[in-house]
Formats: sequence, structure tokens, C-alpha cells
Amino acid sequence: MRNAGVSAANIDAFHLGNFAGPSFTGQNHIAPYVSASLGITGVPSTRFEAACASGGAAFFHAAACVAGGVHDAILVVGVEKMTSQPTPKVAEILASAGDCSGEVRAGSTFPSLFAMIARRHMHEFGTTREHLAAVAVKNHANGALNPSAHLRKTITIEQALAGKPVADPLTLFDCSLVSDGAAAVLVTTLEHARELSARPVRVLGIGQASDHVALDRKRDITTFPAVKAAAERAYRMAGAGPSEIDFAELHDCFTIAEIIALEDLGFVERGAGGPFSAAGCTAIGGSKPVNTSGGLKSKGHPVGATGVAQLCDLALQIRGEAGPRQVKRHSLGLAQNLGGSGASCVVTILGAA
Amino acid sequence: MRNAGVSAANIDAFHLGNFAGPSFTGQNHIAPYVSASLGITGVPSTRFEAACASGGAAFFHAAACVAGGVHDAILVVGVEKMTSQPTPKVAEILASAGDCSGEVRAGSTFPSLFAMIARRHMHEFGTTREHLAAVAVKNHANGALNPSAHLRKTITIEQALAGKPVADPLTLFDCSLVSDGAAAVLVTTLEHARELSARPVRVLGIGQASDHVALDRKRDITTFPAVKAAAERAYRMAGAGPSEIDFAELHDCFTIAEIIALEDLGFVERGAGGPFSAAGCTAIGGSKPVNTSGGLKSKGHPVGATGVAQLCDLALQIRGEAGPRQVKRHSLGLAQNLGGSGASCVVTILGAA
Repeated sequence: MRNAGVSAANIDAFHLGNFAGPSFTGQNHIAPYVSASLGITGVPSTRFEAACASGGAAFFHAAACVAGGVHDAILVVGVEKMTSQPTPKVAEILASAGDCSGEVRAGSTFPSLFAMIARRHMHEFGTTREHLAAVAVKNHANGALNPSAHLRKTITIEQALAGKPVADPLTLFDCSLVSDGAAAVLVTTLEHARELSARPVRVLGIGQASDHVALDRKRDITTFPAVKAAAERAYRMAGAGPSEIDFAELHDCFTIAEIIALEDLGFVERGAGGPFSAAGCTAIGGSKPVNTSGGLKSKGHPVGATGVAQLCDLALQIRGEAGPRQVKRHSLGLAQNLGGSGASCVVTILGAA
Repeated sequence: MRNAGVSAANIDAFHLGNFAGPSFTGQNHIAPYVSASLGITGVPSTRFEAACASGGAAFFHAAACVAGGVHDAILVVGVEKMTSQPTPKVAEILASAGDCSGEVRAGSTFPSLFAMIARRHMHEFGTTREHLAAVAVKNHANGALNPSAHLRKTITIEQALAGKPVADPLTLFDCSLVSDGAAAVLVTTLEHARELSARPVRVLGIGQASDHVALDRKRDITTFPAVKAAAERAYRMAGAGPSEIDFAELHDCFTIAEIIALEDLGFVERGAGGPFSAAGCTAIGGSKPVNTSGGLKSKGHPVGATGVAQLCDLALQIRGEAGPRQVKRHSLGLAQNLGGSGASCVVTILGAA
């Protein structure tokens, strides 16, 4: 609110992205809980949940409500408080974004689901452990430059490859962090944004899409139709294709997820995500910088906050305020926020207003 | 979907109103879970949570997205599955809509919070146990006529007054039910609605508002500012005032809540809700029929479903399809959906299209 130069009285709706606050903290009905504590009352205050894409969903509906003229200024906050629970309980809460009557009941957790996805991607396309490790090394290097990152330490490819196994072929370094965190953006009309800020950022395209929750209901587990559908809509709305995107924040809940996102978003051909990453193309100085924030791997993954935090990072880059991790071409940034093993996705394209 | 004459392919967004599915059933990420099971994939699928106003919030954002031209046909479903948990656990889950760091930690449950509200209303305005009982008797009488009601039995004023105490002055007959249930409506453009239905129903006005979650943060616990703010917006949008509303579905989570809603919505003066109810004015044949469905007291209160079910009942009345509980004047119906002890509220005014 300080950054946007607004006070509580200027906010005419409050959108909270939060996945599992009631399970993590015991408190439900969190939207007015948070908004009232900010002095915001008397306006719509709603929690949006779409698993790990909860922040993206809160933003999607804010963009919709402002674009449609329903509201003028919506504060979108994403938040998750995860560390107050012991690790096995955290894993159980996260698993509740999967199909509890099938895969979860059979013992699956998200690391094991994405391990199956990784194994299949390796089988189909020759993706290697080294490709996965390259994603982790790059995201840790970026996160080390981000003062807001949870885990600011670089790792070597050798360290990544020697990581403690979590769910074969994924090691500790392939998995995102369990974090506490929050992020916020103000969504308002272009006119109002130009009054408030010298460097406003514009929503050029946005799409949200869904799919089956259970992994075994998907035809092909190495691609996510919801990501493709959301991206298609965002690209169409923005009038721009994947080759025109300068940089991106992708949902690297696991390293394999960043590789598949590169493919589903059309940044590379199917199966080419691993070699593209290992060649350094997604590094800050590469042809398509990805997760300059450090991504979920290093910046952290407070679930409900993630989709909003991605947009904050796009805005920093577009404004040229990303400091040592600033990319050269920063006109058009894309954020991809994934929920579960692909049942929810929000893709947003931002540019200078 | 059958009633609206649409198939999964016609739905371009899915809104799920659900308060605490993860706590009640273990399953989170419920929106795509439900939408995919209906054959709806590839479109935005999001859960909306605003405690007991979750269904209303899901509908509010659907109306906003269609009015703003973002989507053409949104399926809004409200659902809660409550009976799989033992009663003490249900009470605990419901209490999580209150302030868990204050009032809930101190032992409050919703019956005890609304008991304090009732006691204060009695003190301020002379409301009596007989007034409260009149609401219960009327809603049970209405629910007995509703084939979709959970508890279809009439009760006498004597029975209501002799009810087992829950939280003084509230007895068992002052409290809504713990129910499993779901409700659904299709929100689409007026043009599309007229193609689909011979008797479409139109959203004439709608408002959502919020307030502090903790009861002790409210200046006056006998009135809910969020209800007033939401109603004011709905009335303004509809170009109609309380005297023009023919009938209403009000959020009688407790009998006192219906009495206060009558006042906050401007149907009667402050403090007059009890005598108005006891005089039979809110009965099906009265001057302002309220909760012809049986309300939360008799139809049931599957939390996330309630706000959507209220709209289904308004639609039945507006279409003249309410059978033995049909009201005479049914042009303009109002639904009021409350969350927690007044921290969330959605008010919707429907009429014939």
C-alpha cells in the first residue's frame, strides 16, 4: 500500500490468495481477518483457493473485476504460514491438493507425484538428472541475489546431484521450500495507476484454466493442458507469443515443473526444456531469463503467496528495479502459477503501462 | 445444468463456494475436483471462501465477471459436507470462522457468540424468548412444505420455548442445522438467459461487504455494519428500497440473526424485529414473507451451499414454482448471506428478467 501510495480508504475490494490457512494455523475466514487488520472494512473481502495457484486466482479475479468496471482498486494479498506445523503434517496438508480418495490414499505426496512426472519425462525425452540439477543451481544463484529470498545460498551442480533423495529421481535440491511469506499488489485502472505511480505496470494478458486433480486422470503426465489453455488465453489477450516474452517467473515447485513449463508455454519444443536449461538459456544473462527471483526453489514457496509474489518480481524487472538480478530486456514478463499436479493454472503477462 | 439446459461445454468458468471442505473431509483444491467430475475442464475453477457467506461470495464474483464481460456462463456451486465429523469437531471447525487468537481461544463457539448478541438485543430492545421462538416455529412450518429441506417437521411455540439450552438464551430450536448439501445456479448474460429459459431470473442488485472477525472489535453487537453496507449497495444498484422487496431469504444461523437481519436490511426499525416476527408478518401469508424455504433452521445450513441455495429459493418463488409455499407477491426477492458473527455479508436482489 505504501509502494502504491494508497491508504485503506482507497481500497474497494480485498482478495486473499491462501491455500490452507485453516489447516496450517487453525484460523479460517482469513480474508476479513487480514483486511480488517489493515483498516479495510465495509468492502468485499474474499479468500480465493486454487491450491498452489491460489495467489494467481485471487489476482485473476481482481483483474477481471477491475477490467469489468466492478471495482476501481483491489488489494490482492497472497499469504501462507507453513512453518508452525511439523514437517510430516506440512506434507499431509500439501498432499490435500491431490486426490485424497485415490493417489493420496495410496501414499502419494507431491514429491512422489512430481517424481513420476520427472521419470516419465526422462523416459520420453531423455531428460537427465543433470538437466534437473541445472535448474536448481540457476535458481539458487538467482535467489542469492534477492534480498527477499528465503534461502540465499548458491549451490554447485555436484551438490545438487549429490542431494539427499526425496522421491527418486528428485533430491532435496529439486524440491521447493516450506516457507512463511506474503506478497501484495494493488490492481487498479490504467488511469488511476498512472496517477499513483511513475512506473505503473499493466496486465496485458491473463488466463486461468483447470484440469482433473488426480494425476492418473491425465492422458500424458509430461504436459499440463491447464497451463497450455491458460497461456493460450494470456497470449491471445496480450497479442504476443512466447518468443516475444522477455523473461518469466515459472512455478518451479520441483525442478521438473520448470522444465515442463518452458515447454507448455511454448518457450521451447516439447522435450527440449532440460537441454535448454542446462545450456544456461534461462539464466539472468541467457536468452530467456526464468525465475530471476530465485523461484520457489530459493525465494521460497509460501503456497498462497507464490502467485502474487511472481507478479511483484515481474513488476520489479519491468520497472528496472531488480538490482543485481536485473535482466536486459524487460518489456514483457510472464508469470505461470500452477496448482497441484496441474489441475489449476494462472498465466499472466505484464508490461510497462 | 439440466434445469438451465446447458452442458459442460457451455460453461466458461466454475465458482465453488465452500467454507471448510479440507477440515471436514481432508480434501483441499476442491474446485477443480468438483468441476472436472462434472466434465468441466480447461476453464477457471476457483474456490471462494468467506465463512458462511462463501456461497454468496462465489455468486458475487460470478455476477461481477459476467456483468464485466469477462465470462459468459459461470456455474456457481455451493457445497459443504459436515456430517462426517463428530459434533465436537464440527463445532471446532465452525468456530474457526471466529477469531481463534481471541474469542475462540477463550472458549467461544458460534452459539455462544450469538447468545451474547441475543442477550444484548433483549437488553436494548426488550426482545423476548417468545420472539426468538416465533422465528423457529415459522421456519419449521415453512421447511415442512419444502421437499428439499433437511428437517421437515413443524414445532409449536411451547416446544421451542422448552428446547434444550445450548447457550443461554438460545435453545436447540434457535440454532441452525448441521447438514450435508449443495446448490447450484448458472450465471449468464440476460440475452443468453432468455434463450435458455422461459422464466429467467435477473440479478437486479448485489453487494458484498466485510468487517472485523472478532465480536469484541464491533462497536455494537446488535447490528452488523457489513450487512448494512452490502444492502445499501444492492438497493442502490436495484433502484429499490426495503419496502419494495416482496419476500426474502435471510441468514437465520440463529433465530436472533433473522431478527437482526430484518432490522439491518431496513424491513423494520431497529429493535422491532422480534415483535414483527411474533406478529406473523414474516410468515408465508404475511406482509414480508421471510425464509419460505425453511431457512437455515429447517432447510439446513450446509455452510458453503447456503448462499447459493438462498438464490435457488428466490428463483423458485420469482418463477411461481414454489408450490404450497408460494408467496403472492413475488416480483422482487432479496437474499442475505452472513459470514461469522457479521465479518462477511452478501446481499442479492433478484427479479424476473
